[in-house]
Amino acid sequence: MKKILLIPDSFKGTMTALTVCGIMEEVISRHYPDAQVVSLPIADGGEGSVDSFLYALGGQKIPLRVKGPDFDELDAFYGLIDQGRTAVIEMAACAGLPLAGDENNPLFSTTYGVGQLMLDAARRGAGRIILGLGGSATNDGGCGAAAAAGIRFLKKSGEAFIPVGDTLYLIDRIDSSGKNEKLDGLPITAMCDVENPLYGPQGAAVVFAPQKGADENAVKKLDAGLQHLARLILRDLGLDVAKLPGAGAAGGMGAGARAFFSASLMPGIEVVLDAVGFEKLAADADLILTGEGRIDRQSLDGKAVVGVARRAKELGVPVVAVAGDIGDGIEAIYDEGVSGIFTTNRLALDFKLARERSERDLALTLDNLMRFLKRLGF
Amino acid sequence: MKKILLIPDSFKGTMTALTVCGIMEEVISRHYPDAQVVSLPIADGGEGSVDSFLYALGGQKIPLRVKGPDFDELDAFYGLIDQGRTAVIEMAACAGLPLAGDENNPLFSTTYGVGQLMLDAARRGAGRIILGLGGSATNDGGCGAAAAAGIRFLKKSGEAFIPVGDTLYLIDRIDSSGKNEKLDGLPITAMCDVENPLYGPQGAAVVFAPQKGADENAVKKLDAGLQHLARLILRDLGLDVAKLPGAGAAGGMGAGARAFFSASLMPGIEVVLDAVGFEKLAADADLILTGEGRIDRQSLDGKAVVGVARRAKELGVPVVAVAGDIGDGIEAIYDEGVSGIFTTNRLALDFKLARERSERDLALTLDNLMRFLKRLGF
Repeated sequence: MKKILLIPDSFKGTMTALTVCGIMEEVISRHYPDAQVVSLPIADGGEGSVDSFLYALGGQKIPLRVKGPDFDELDAFYGLIDQGRTAVIEMAACAGLPLAGDENNPLFSTTYGVGQLMLDAARRGAGRIILGLGGSATNDGGCGAAAAAGIRFLKKSGEAFIPVGDTLYLIDRIDSSGKNEKLDGLPITAMCDVENPLYGPQGAAVVFAPQKGADENAVKKLDAGLQHLARLILRDLGLDVAKLPGAGAAGGMGAGARAFFSASLMPGIEVVLDAVGFEKLAADADLILTGEGRIDRQSLDGKAVVGVARRAKELGVPVVAVAGDIGDGIEAIYDEGVSGIFTTNRLALDFKLARERSERDLALTLDNLMRFLKRLGF
Repeated sequence: MKKILLIPDSFKGTMTALTVCGIMEEVISRHYPDAQVVSLPIADGGEGSVDSFLYALGGQKIPLRVKGPDFDELDAFYGLIDQGRTAVIEMAACAGLPLAGDENNPLFSTTYGVGQLMLDAARRGAGRIILGLGGSATNDGGCGAAAAAGIRFLKKSGEAFIPVGDTLYLIDRIDSSGKNEKLDGLPITAMCDVENPLYGPQGAAVVFAPQKGADENAVKKLDAGLQHLARLILRDLGLDVAKLPGAGAAGGMGAGARAFFSASLMPGIEVVLDAVGFEKLAADADLILTGEGRIDRQSLDGKAVVGVARRAKELGVPVVAVAGDIGDGIEAIYDEGVSGIFTTNRLALDFKLARERSERDLALTLDNLMRFLKRLGF
């Protein structure tokens, strides 16, 4: 009996990783009805990450009412996997851009709810938290989440407040003495797929705030606020996040996760592969199917396909990748362990038209691949 | 040692079959330096068909000065293969649209040169002629070629003339008694990939004359002329070409080839596969690579990929196809013997942009396929 492992990332702009898994499963079952197919849709840290973990590993979805990006209460959630020992939280569940809508202004949005989710998970006894950074509406450097966890931000006047992007500059002192003890020493792994520093030309505000609704002046203010925050974190918490790669993820939540929650920042794919126990699942697999919306030279590092391939290569299991677009100059990917890459672009169409066909094209591409493998004796 | 057979058609609008073969050879030699690679670029009957036959089989290119589409002399050619026993003639060499240029008017263009080429081949002792219909500038029903071969077209006045589209209606009688005896009984196979009848809504004039420069009135006149010709062919030569599928190919040259030269009309791919001795070449091949610019439901019949696959299936040799576009609903192609079809559209791009990358994309697609096959133990 064949064992086939499906570990696709989402196809950005067209299909979630879950959808991709569903299509792949359906097509494979037609050609290899007896195969054991294991689906591990990759969580990228953004929206849908909790569902991906639960789909792959089973577990419990915990609903929780917390503050949304605009401080209003909303229904959020997180996941418990591994018999409740690990909590999976996606920022997007309570601080996501879609929740904030077109009216979002990252000067005023908060990560407060993220801290509430973390605290709840800790109170329920989770011994570890996986925190997905991604899809955020915020630019508060994680101060909201920290405040929810009991860390106090004080103005010159001594008054405690919950900083947002607009008011980061008002922080005069950070007092972590009141941080909830349930979170003390709790291992937190933040899924982080960007390398951006906290501030500056490649920082959170300049690179990401415009797509969250910030205009030019807002970007300047946000950037200055994050720089101010970095100085205070260094002075009051003794940690230098100024040059930390990934500190600029999710409006500076990368820095906040590190500074306020002692989180380690790791590429999402590595977190996922560790969490699912990739080596154990893949060791006796006959084939691994992975894929993502676009594979190009820039995306060779730290992305899903390469991450899967590197580990599969150690095990000697062949990896086949499916992609929407395949850029030029990606030959190195074969050395990383990918046996073949196949595009889903069956017709010469502009992306706008191609995306409308994406599910059908993926199914037809998989169908062709399965027929081909079968003909070759797989 | 692997034996790999390359039998691609042209990728219409981007690459000739010869170019495709060249790219495939280069890529294969990188991954399988010891493989025996046999290239058989498919001649489709149009421009380049003679070169394709000569590339695949070797032979001699015979230059000959004959009448062009406008009755002016030009340098044309044909090919001799099979130790001179078979002549390969492409109409396009002396009656092709590119020769006539933008000024072409199918009311006045002639296939006279085609008859001259056939006659010369017969005089040189060719025992068989392969005649490529395709890419013509003409709409004379093959009367020009017939006139060159000695068949006389007489007006009511008894005067002999060389009919063109504009004057088909003036034919009062066809006298084949003067036809050059060298052509009598000479087997002629016309490569014909269309099913259009001679005249009517699906006929040569209505469907093809506009792209040869005919306006609405000209189309009407040409259509009526071809209908008139069919009546006389029936009356004087005893052959009913009115409903013959393919009679409308190349401005009615399909009908003319049949009526004046007793040619059989055959799908180009079958003619090619017969001429190269496909079964003998393919019987010990490990893999056959074929391809064309577009594979879709409409093109399943009589086209290159399916033609190759059907015969390869009999031999049990796997066939892999590469295509620019892969249309929907082509699953039947797998039953015909195709093991896998792979698109060259590595990026979601409109055809206008994709065609500029076509050679590179074909090379990269082949490269991926060869790596994949190698990884799978081929």
